[in-house]
Formats: sequence, structure tokens, C-alpha cells
Amino acid sequence: MSTFSRLVRFLAKDGHIYYGDAILPTGVSDIAKVTRVHVIQGDIFGQHHVTDKIADVKTLLAPLARNDIGTVRCLGLNYEQHAKESNLPLPKFPILFYKPVTAITGPTDDIPVSLMAQEGEGLDYECELVIVIGKEAKNVPEGQALDYVLGYAVGNDVSHRDWQIKRGGGQWGLGKGFDGWAPLGPGIVSSKLIRDPNALQISTKLNGQPVQGSSTKDMIFNVTQTVSFLSQGTTLLPGDLIFTGTPQGVGMGRKPALWLKDGDQVEVSLEGVGSCVNKVVFEKPSSKL
Amino acid sequence: MSTFSRLVRFLAKDGHIYYGDAILPTGVSDIAKVTRVHVIQGDIFGQHHVTDKIADVKTLLAPLARNDIGTVRCLGLNYEQHAKESNLPLPKFPILFYKPVTAITGPTDDIPVSLMAQEGEGLDYECELVIVIGKEAKNVPEGQALDYVLGYAVGNDVSHRDWQIKRGGGQWGLGKGFDGWAPLGPGIVSSKLIRDPNALQISTKLNGQPVQGSSTKDMIFNVTQTVSFLSQGTTLLPGDLIFTGTPQGVGMGRKPALWLKDGDQVEVSLEGVGSCVNKVVFEKPSSKL
Repeated sequence: MSTFSRLVRFLAKDGHIYYGDAILPTGVSDIAKVTRVHVIQGDIFGQHHVTDKIADVKTLLAPLARNDIGTVRCLGLNYEQHAKESNLPLPKFPILFYKPVTAITGPTDDIPVSLMAQEGEGLDYECELVIVIGKEAKNVPEGQALDYVLGYAVGNDVSHRDWQIKRGGGQWGLGKGFDGWAPLGPGIVSSKLIRDPNALQISTKLNGQPVQGSSTKDMIFNVTQTVSFLSQGTTLLPGDLIFTGTPQGVGMGRKPALWLKDGDQVEVSLEGVGSCVNKVVFEKPSSKL
Repeated sequence: MSTFSRLVRFLAKDGHIYYGDAILPTGVSDIAKVTRVHVIQGDIFGQHHVTDKIADVKTLLAPLARNDIGTVRCLGLNYEQHAKESNLPLPKFPILFYKPVTAITGPTDDIPVSLMAQEGEGLDYECELVIVIGKEAKNVPEGQALDYVLGYAVGNDVSHRDWQIKRGGGQWGLGKGFDGWAPLGPGIVSSKLIRDPNALQISTKLNGQPVQGSSTKDMIFNVTQTVSFLSQGTTLLPGDLIFTGTPQGVGMGRKPALWLKDGDQVEVSLEGVGSCVNKVVFEKPSSKL
């Protein structure tokens, strides 16, 4: 359905922000390595075309502008091994929660940790395959679900376990919704290019050391099941995102627990898509209160 | 901050959809009774003005267009008496969850109950004061919180207790997010007119019989506390909505439980704002699957 192969949004060396189709050298699949792009004109979810104009990338941004993003849905406990490390039974239905659009940030942006998020402990990473909805979807059968998917990105469902679990009254909203707590990118690979989203390597490195490594094969509800299920009685809109859950290896599942610290570098990667590399930055009391 | 007193969005008798400032006869405070409106031109959250042009209302719509609505946040267990009827302790912090923008519907629209939402039981009503954010708010102290509020509406946080609680894996997302499960309206009363949002009568009638009746005085986290708290580390955007929780009297809290049925009429009302009156309509298998 898309006209592009690898959608990126970027600040160009000419000082403008564009959408574009990434030009990758032969043998390179990580979109984060893109330097040159075919500029796209028009509405990404409507009339648009990939032009012959080539722009040079200065900085990759979140692959969708805030106004182009709809509702951000997330699944919890959607990998078998992660459910096991959490000592929780496998869910019978997808466990659905949300992040606000203000959580979405770019593939190289800092992850800001506000003063509220510095209370308690439990700052954690979660690498996730992210589905980008391309057209309005309601009551979609599984066999047609992929027709509604624009493409895939990798995301980090940054979480604060104390606010998520102990202080949140059982709802995960508070501990996962802070500004910049959903790095997304480095681009969106068209569903034309990724024929089977349910067999991709997915991983996280913390300060260069592997901490999560799995395959989307381990997902309990795969991409087609997820899109179909979430569309029952609920209209998914173009630009809606679905974070599909994280595999085992999160900081909470380790003994002893491993929490993110000020200055840590977190890299989440998805096969065929690439990596987001973000630095954790604790805000200071003087900065904005 | 707003230029209007009572914002409405409506289909006019001339066949166009407008934003406008409701003209209410002396002594009438329920915006649902509006018949004539001063048309507003421009961007509701930016440059706009109330014109001299008067339009006749055919149908009131949700007071904000979908594109003007940002993130829809909701609080759970935010009334003391409701927490008690739920046999749950008073929360120490606001309990935050979300609805998708597709849940928002108008003050007289039907509430559709999809086939998925007809599984299990527990279709319930929740009258709520809804805060409409008027300008970008981050790390706002309580004393300044009302400066960021455009106004107030009444909403119905329609809920399916089986999907919300038993089948949702502990997260309330599945049971509260279906299309049309957040009637909102009948208009947005400017915060200029409602000096104290924390002392308003709020109620629900089911088929004309009172089932909820309370005051926003019973809220555990009041409007200023809620806006300030939710803005810590998180940017609230113009057009974001906050459903602030429901008082006692929900169907789940009754013995025996009282669930909504096909054809039921639910009316939620807020003092100084007015009422949304919506009919529950069960969808049939043939309708769209």
C-alpha cells in the first residue's frame, strides 16, 4: 500500500524537515546509517509521492510527526519467555494499555527522566516491534490484517516499575507515559519489504552489552492476531501505533534487578529495520519546575 | 483564556458543521437545550473569534472535532464513596488510564455495543466531569493549574466490567476503549464561568431513574491537583481531555449488579454544563464483520 520502502523523517543539511525514502548502500539494512534520502511530498497517509529530489540527512527524527500520530497502543506480557520471567501466567487475550503521543521521540534523542520519575526506583528498557497502521481498520479478520499495516519500526517502551506497578494503583499509565519515554525509529520499513513480521530478531544493548535478545516468533499474539483483535469494535486510524510487547531480559526480570542510570546508553534493534540509540538524562531540579 | 462562554460544535440547519458559542435563554443552564449559536471562526486552540453570525442548531455533536482532540486521559477510583462501594482502598496517587480518541462521541449519539463487547457481562455507565486542556502544560504547580484549563464538559466513561477486569489482564484498556464509549458534551463551559469545578452536582439517570448522584466535592484528587500532577514530566497539549472519575452508584457497585441492556437510555449530567443522553444499541452480527 505504501509508495516508499523505508520511510524516514529527518532534519536535512539544508535546515528543513522532510519525510523521505531512505537510500541504503547495498548490504546495509540499519536505517540509522542512512545519509541520503529521496524526499517525499504530500500526505504520508494520503496523496504523496517519492520525488527525485535527494536530501542529505543531518539528524533522523521520530519517523512520524506528532500531528501524524494517532493513538499509541501497547501490549503487555506478549512474549512467552517474558511472561515467565515476570512469574505471570500467559494472557488469554492481549493486555492493552496506552502511551500519550508526547512519549514518542526520535531514534537518537535523549530519554529525559523528570523529577517525578526519579522518585522510587525501577527505570527499565523494553525493545519492541511497533506496528504502524496505514488505513482505517475495523472488525478486520486475521487473514486481511496485514493489508492495514503501513510498516514496522522498533521502539523502546521505557518504564518506571515503581510508578507502573506499586504507585500506579494497578494501572500502568503513570509509569510509562512520561515525555520522551517511547523512542521510535530509526524509520518505518514498508510491510511490502517485511513479508513475515513474526520471525524477526529483536534485541537491546545497555552501554554496549546485550541484555535482551529474542525473536518476534516468541510473541503470544502475533502481528496479524494483534491487529485483528484490537480492531474488533474499535476503529484503528492511519497513524495509530501498536507497541507489541517485549521479550525476556528486562531489568525487572533480573536478579539482582538492573535499573537504568543517568547517562546510560540504550540501544534497541529490530532485524531489517535498524536501531534506536538513546541516552538516559536525569533532569535537574532547576531545569523546569 | 477563552473568548467563548459555552463552546458547542453542531450540525446547523444550513447543513454545515460549525463551532459556536451557545445562546441560552435566561434561566437555562443545560447546553443541550441550545437552539441558536454565535458561529466561531478560526482555530479553537489558536486564533479564533466569536462572530455576529447566528446559526440554528439541528444536532449537537461532540464539542471537539476528532482532529482537535489530543490524548484522552482518565482517572480511576477518584471519588471516595465510589472507592468504598468498590471495596478498594483510597488511592495514594491518581490512577491513570486512557481511552482512544475514537471512543469520543456526541451528546445524543448512540453508544454502539460491538459483538466483542456483547461477550461476557458488565456493561456499565460512569458520569464524569471532563477537563479540557487549553494550552501546553508541563510541570505546572497547583496554584496555576486552572490557567491551563479551557473548560469543562460532562462525559460517560462507558465500561464493560468483564473485559475491563476479568479478561483484560489487569489493565482497563480493553473494557473501556470501544468506538463511541465516551459520550462527551453537550458543550464545553469556559473555566471563566465555572469558578469552582470542585463543588458541582454530578449525576446519572438510567431510563429516567436516578442511579448516580453526587458532588465533585467527593473527588479524591480535585481539578487543580489532577492537572498539576498529570503535568509532572508529561506535557499536556491543547485538546487533551481528562475524565476525572465517577462517583458511587455504578452498576457494578449495586446488589444485584445493574447492567446496561440494548435500548437503554443513559443520561449523564453536570451542574452548570448540562446533559448527554445516549441510547445503548447492540450491534447485530450482520452489521459489519
